[in-house]
Amino acid sequence: MPVDFMDELRRREQRVVGYFSDPRFRDWFRPEHLQRAVYAYIERPGKRLRPAVLLFSCGAVGGDEDVALPAAAGIELFHTWTLVHDDVIDHDLKRRGGPTVHEQGRQMGAEELGLQPAAAIDYGNDLAILAGDVQQGWSVCLFAELAAKGVPPEVVLSLIARLESHVLNELIRGELLDVQFATLDLDSLQQDAIIEMLWLKTGILYEFAAMAGAMIGLATPDTDDPTVQAIGQFAAKCGTAFQLQDDILGLVGDERALGKPVGSDVREGKGTTIVYHAFRQAKDSQREFLKRVLGNRQADDADVAQVMRLLRDLGGVEYTNTLAKEYIAQALPCLDGLRPSPSKELLLAWAHFMIEREF
Amino acid sequence: MPVDFMDELRRREQRVVGYFSDPRFRDWFRPEHLQRAVYAYIERPGKRLRPAVLLFSCGAVGGDEDVALPAAAGIELFHTWTLVHDDVIDHDLKRRGGPTVHEQGRQMGAEELGLQPAAAIDYGNDLAILAGDVQQGWSVCLFAELAAKGVPPEVVLSLIARLESHVLNELIRGELLDVQFATLDLDSLQQDAIIEMLWLKTGILYEFAAMAGAMIGLATPDTDDPTVQAIGQFAAKCGTAFQLQDDILGLVGDERALGKPVGSDVREGKGTTIVYHAFRQAKDSQREFLKRVLGNRQADDADVAQVMRLLRDLGGVEYTNTLAKEYIAQALPCLDGLRPSPSKELLLAWAHFMIEREF
Repeated sequence: MPVDFMDELRRREQRVVGYFSDPRFRDWFRPEHLQRAVYAYIERPGKRLRPAVLLFSCGAVGGDEDVALPAAAGIELFHTWTLVHDDVIDHDLKRRGGPTVHEQGRQMGAEELGLQPAAAIDYGNDLAILAGDVQQGWSVCLFAELAAKGVPPEVVLSLIARLESHVLNELIRGELLDVQFATLDLDSLQQDAIIEMLWLKTGILYEFAAMAGAMIGLATPDTDDPTVQAIGQFAAKCGTAFQLQDDILGLVGDERALGKPVGSDVREGKGTTIVYHAFRQAKDSQREFLKRVLGNRQADDADVAQVMRLLRDLGGVEYTNTLAKEYIAQALPCLDGLRPSPSKELLLAWAHFMIEREF
Repeated sequence: MPVDFMDELRRREQRVVGYFSDPRFRDWFRPEHLQRAVYAYIERPGKRLRPAVLLFSCGAVGGDEDVALPAAAGIELFHTWTLVHDDVIDHDLKRRGGPTVHEQGRQMGAEELGLQPAAAIDYGNDLAILAGDVQQGWSVCLFAELAAKGVPPEVVLSLIARLESHVLNELIRGELLDVQFATLDLDSLQQDAIIEMLWLKTGILYEFAAMAGAMIGLATPDTDDPTVQAIGQFAAKCGTAFQLQDDILGLVGDERALGKPVGSDVREGKGTTIVYHAFRQAKDSQREFLKRVLGNRQADDADVAQVMRLLRDLGGVEYTNTLAKEYIAQALPCLDGLRPSPSKELLLAWAHFMIEREF
């Protein structure tokens, strides 16, 4: 990975964060608890890989990244609201090195409003639901601002309609499949279904980010344009690989670099290809143990650590790593039709970064 | 109220329901549990007062109601997703004569997925959060469809941006104030704060519905247009009166006509002008009793019934009824600048219906 890729990534991050940190937005969100909830994740360090692929894609088709900036900020916010609601659903307590929005809300309810424990939990969840709701609206507004940058209104409407129908619906379908998988018996877990869920939960939004960048760069409202489609396919495959890598890091990653506890996926019973593969390789006694611990929120630390070792030892991590590399290998040729440019180079470097990252 | 007003209202309802019942939308929402959650409220009987004021406003400025139909469907859906999330937040079990979305989801989780009681509750809440999320997106998509009806894209973008910023943010602020009020001591409840909360939670969306109808009818993206502003003020005041009437019906209404249990506002500790006025009129012993029962989810039926009697006897209902009538009286002159037309007559009849309704 060339050193300058990380520089280029950080430069985009600064511009995107600068865009949605503009003070004109802050007063939109009141009372103060809601404002703190809305800004919680976006003010913490993040990789901002979705805005990056949007901007690189715009440049790679000959467009001006500056024009696409509102959409880059919009896609990051769209991703953010899904995290806020996901965290409520998954009962997660940490995200990006701090408390999740609903956990932070619980603390505010208890400490600042003097609520009893059960009422404080409700208050935190309420705050997170409402914060995610306004973030969804904010992200749509950021896309609408493209018109002021000179993007034709038909293109802007096409982007908003696709984001709020196909992209949103597939993403939520993936999230609900994820919820339903956690209720399934391990014997019923199917690899195809897991991959479909990953594609929906992560691939779809990456696909849209790249398509949006290309549509803005080409000033076309046509989502079926061959260049738009090719660049979308590229990003969707990389996004699926990204999620496979995420599942790996959830088992073998560094807790501080990740900003969330390693092992939470185990207690949550998350349906991953790691679990799928390991379970198929396991002996009967190991299967019984896996069934007992996976998805058991009360599981003790020793059992969780033992499951994590077992998933590695049975080859689940290696298997998933190979899968992720295959997705990247399939993604790269999608860009063959693009003429050489620095932006195209950045897209290729971005693809490799998706699975080489350690956080 | 002229008999034909109800006919006119029902005709609009049929057209709006017909629009979002189009089979082309149904496949957007999968898996099946999500689809059932998304359609739950919109398939039950409803008053559809927001789409009605949008269509009447379009006609009253000389526009074609048919062109505004996607927006009318969009505003009803926007209202619907806020109900779905509100019901999760308020732990309500009934809405429009059936189970709330999260309660229906809990039943599906228990009966169809075999989940244990606590897991089924989580599943129902997850489903309702996600269903509201996709409904928000769907409503934006319906607005985007205005462009295909010939509404200039600049007007469509202006409507979407206002809905997803000002309207959404004020509405959510109102919802959070409502949540916070339920945690307040009765002594701290202020009438101004209650009215502001009503204005935000209900008035804002009515204001937008009327503004949207007028902007479509006038083909203007200008939210500051004097006619657009006047018609918006009219609807906002009527919307606030509507919510005051809603609080009254929550105490003295007919359970079957309302489709939800009378008395739930008492257990929830809802901050209303009824409670505010009655508490100010109450003797010390009555205040103690009100404090003990209001907001106590475990309160028994006899205590709840006694509180409801007390709120009436202390004049809370009459006081609130007078307030509602004042808002309607202030609203009517806002339409003075509109030339006479059947649509204007319907707007005036609609205003009276907002507080004369018994369901």
